[in-house]
Amino acid sequence: MEDKVRLATRFDAFGIHYIEGGWPGSNPKDLRFFRRMQDVALKHAKLAAFSMTRRAGASADSDANMRALIEGGAPVATIVGKSWDFHVTHVLETTLPENLAMIADTIAFLRSRVEEVIYDAEHFFDGFRANRDYALATLRAAADGGAHWIVLCDTNGGTLPVELVEMIREVKRHIRTPLGIHAHNDAECAVANSLAAVMEGVGQVQGTMNGFGERCGNANLVSIVPSLVLKLGFDCIPAPNLGELRDLSRFAAELANRKPWPSQPYVGDSAFAHKGGMHVSAVLKHPETYEHVNPEAVGNHRRVLVSELAGKSNILWKAREYGIDIDRETPDSRRILDRLKALEDQGFQFEGAEASFELLMERALGRHTPYFELEAYRVIVEEQNASAEPVAEATVRLRVKGIPEHTAASGNGPVDALDHALRKALEEFYPKLKEMRLLDYKVRILDESKGTAAKTRVLITSGDGRETWGTVGVADNIIEASWQALVDSIEYKLRADERRSGAR
Amino acid sequence: MEDKVRLATRFDAFGIHYIEGGWPGSNPKDLRFFRRMQDVALKHAKLAAFSMTRRAGASADSDANMRALIEGGAPVATIVGKSWDFHVTHVLETTLPENLAMIADTIAFLRSRVEEVIYDAEHFFDGFRANRDYALATLRAAADGGAHWIVLCDTNGGTLPVELVEMIREVKRHIRTPLGIHAHNDAECAVANSLAAVMEGVGQVQGTMNGFGERCGNANLVSIVPSLVLKLGFDCIPAPNLGELRDLSRFAAELANRKPWPSQPYVGDSAFAHKGGMHVSAVLKHPETYEHVNPEAVGNHRRVLVSELAGKSNILWKAREYGIDIDRETPDSRRILDRLKALEDQGFQFEGAEASFELLMERALGRHTPYFELEAYRVIVEEQNASAEPVAEATVRLRVKGIPEHTAASGNGPVDALDHALRKALEEFYPKLKEMRLLDYKVRILDESKGTAAKTRVLITSGDGRETWGTVGVADNIIEASWQALVDSIEYKLRADERRSGAR
Repeated sequence: MEDKVRLATRFDAFGIHYIEGGWPGSNPKDLRFFRRMQDVALKHAKLAAFSMTRRAGASADSDANMRALIEGGAPVATIVGKSWDFHVTHVLETTLPENLAMIADTIAFLRSRVEEVIYDAEHFFDGFRANRDYALATLRAAADGGAHWIVLCDTNGGTLPVELVEMIREVKRHIRTPLGIHAHNDAECAVANSLAAVMEGVGQVQGTMNGFGERCGNANLVSIVPSLVLKLGFDCIPAPNLGELRDLSRFAAELANRKPWPSQPYVGDSAFAHKGGMHVSAVLKHPETYEHVNPEAVGNHRRVLVSELAGKSNILWKAREYGIDIDRETPDSRRILDRLKALEDQGFQFEGAEASFELLMERALGRHTPYFELEAYRVIVEEQNASAEPVAEATVRLRVKGIPEHTAASGNGPVDALDHALRKALEEFYPKLKEMRLLDYKVRILDESKGTAAKTRVLITSGDGRETWGTVGVADNIIEASWQALVDSIEYKLRADERRSGAR
Repeated sequence: MEDKVRLATRFDAFGIHYIEGGWPGSNPKDLRFFRRMQDVALKHAKLAAFSMTRRAGASADSDANMRALIEGGAPVATIVGKSWDFHVTHVLETTLPENLAMIADTIAFLRSRVEEVIYDAEHFFDGFRANRDYALATLRAAADGGAHWIVLCDTNGGTLPVELVEMIREVKRHIRTPLGIHAHNDAECAVANSLAAVMEGVGQVQGTMNGFGERCGNANLVSIVPSLVLKLGFDCIPAPNLGELRDLSRFAAELANRKPWPSQPYVGDSAFAHKGGMHVSAVLKHPETYEHVNPEAVGNHRRVLVSELAGKSNILWKAREYGIDIDRETPDSRRILDRLKALEDQGFQFEGAEASFELLMERALGRHTPYFELEAYRVIVEEQNASAEPVAEATVRLRVKGIPEHTAASGNGPVDALDHALRKALEEFYPKLKEMRLLDYKVRILDESKGTAAKTRVLITSGDGRETWGTVGVADNIIEASWQALVDSIEYKLRADERRSGAR
């Protein structure tokens, strides 16, 4: 849930207009998210909650989905309904007129209870092909119900731009409600379909970060947004914000525990990579010769040789973001860059681990004094017989301000035990650590072909009620990688407290 | 080189019309490939060799590239030349008229020496935007030189379909030579651009398998071909051959040493994967409700994901897929379903862990006898001082056919050590385990809000050279979860061997 809150906050800052946060009626987890979001102030985006139309033969106000929608408190409701006659009769197993009533009733019911109602016309393009008149009738039902938006969905993802454009033109002859497009990528045309729809006057594009989604994915906003802004001149996102596009894409991938896609358009590591003598010299003199847009415009950068000079300005920019002032001409940026390179060679990555990156910079500049020194740790996991639960125990030996501390604790697993032992050793010196909680723990195997002997990257998210931060560790050994991330998390917390109290 | 020969043979059998095999003038390896191909009979495809236009101020017959092209013996020459005035003056550093002469001369020279000449108009769309008349003049030079094809290249990959179509229409007003399209994917529109060009009457699509290529890749033929054949009615590849599309895509990925892209349109593992009760029961009765094409048409197949929403029909389906025959009316399916539900409540998921699912079914039916019994294990990870590498050691105590075995091993981390100790204990009883290798190890934290005390799911992929299989384990403790997945992987291997030898 906290990941979703972090994502929503980032989307909002980026300039996304609507954030669909889940289906409150489908599971308590999604409902909890909407309740949690009532305490989060969004500056720009509107939060939308998803649901189906009311059930056949029932009333909207007796529908559990509707109640959950209202209870979640999101200002926007996105309602999905059937456009394809075959789906109505064979999947919903109801009549064609009842489906029209379900659409109109649901929207009319919500219209007076939320600020805005978006109607998603599921399988619209397939439905139009099968029974044009009925598909249009479902849109009319939504319009009559008072929908603020009607979104045409290519749910099965198989529609090609040439047919899609024809069908949108036909819809516009019948429907005055503002239109949206919701495309899937089953024919590898989701981005092109979304852009084609916008060129036909459609005003809302539904998509996902990096195209994440079932089967072949949804329309990829990370490709659509820069094409709209930089190529087609739409101001859907303020152009300066596009500079965060790559970071945002990485952040979403990291939280979804997915590897970044190296050849991803606009934001991938390879998107502006050049090799080969003539290409390189041309691109250095005249970047437009081999680059369709300026990579900086989307927060990416040109990659030319193995040694990345472009990395330096990146670091300066990052450092500035974290309030560390590095002058371009001092050796400070060099020192940070060298340290960063060494860590990246080991498999470190700092998207989603801003706290570790901040500590990295301060350590490279010699500005960070550790709050404790580790002497030794040991973790034991033991299953004494096949029917017993395994037991995990950790011991930690360390020194705080010269004072030795040696303690042990158990836990649900080796990392949990280590976390307990470490806190036990430190809390008497730093009682504020009691405020800190581990919110999330992610593991990624870096070189998967090596099986269990591969390198492990651990990403930990912690919070203390005021702030949430991410840290990273990398090692052959998962325990060691977790230890690094745990230590960074604690160091960051102690440093933040000291800064707040003005002691350092 | 042999990989390229194998690929060419497969492309030929599939029905590809032209295979561009490299640039014989650029390196001896490519020239060797063309010489080697002189002994390979292609049934259908024509082999093409690539080169640039002759150098400025020189003659075509004194050009080393031209000599290599002839020497390679490919029946088709693909010649790339400049369409963009800025590239002529600033990259080639020659004059606009000399570039026109280079194009016309080179094509005229080759026209009498090879069977077919394809002219690739590099940066055509950017060139057209910059200087329409000059870009068209370069095409005219190619036509005058006698090119059989003129291929419009979106070299920087940034052109959107809407502009591309306009420019192709303009070209067709001036040029009678058959046209081709060569798109790159920098705006995630390469497939849509290629299809749009075909709809404008373009007769040749240049692309690559799986879209492999520099930066964001080339146009992906694996998506373009089935859309042309199945959706737009072109008979570019005989429809029955499309049944090999998935295999061909995998084969190319394998030879390129790239992991298959799970959400790849048409051919990916997830392309026809369905999850969720209503979707599944609908798709089983009427596949067209959630599938844009028949998966078998492209050599793929429907995957019903076994998930918490799984109904009984799901299980029957899966069981049938694994050759386990459960009658709908016997209590067997009930027993499997109960076991599945219990495991899913604990966080198990069987996507990618078919071997564990198969073992689950056999265990639920009482058909599986374990190959060994665990008595105890212990794992220790220890870092003795802050500068030392941590050490991991595992001990295992088990019984095989009543015989006790107690051993220990070390490893790069706790799971690696456990894997080593387990194999050490078992290999003397089951020597075939030496064939087995762990190929991949993935970790996911299930309830992330609990931090390091959350449940851990481990997914292991193993292989023995004949087969690849996935297993899963779930526990509070990552070591225990890994242990479960390791044990399943070994049980599956031993069972598969026994089945193959007919002993059970």
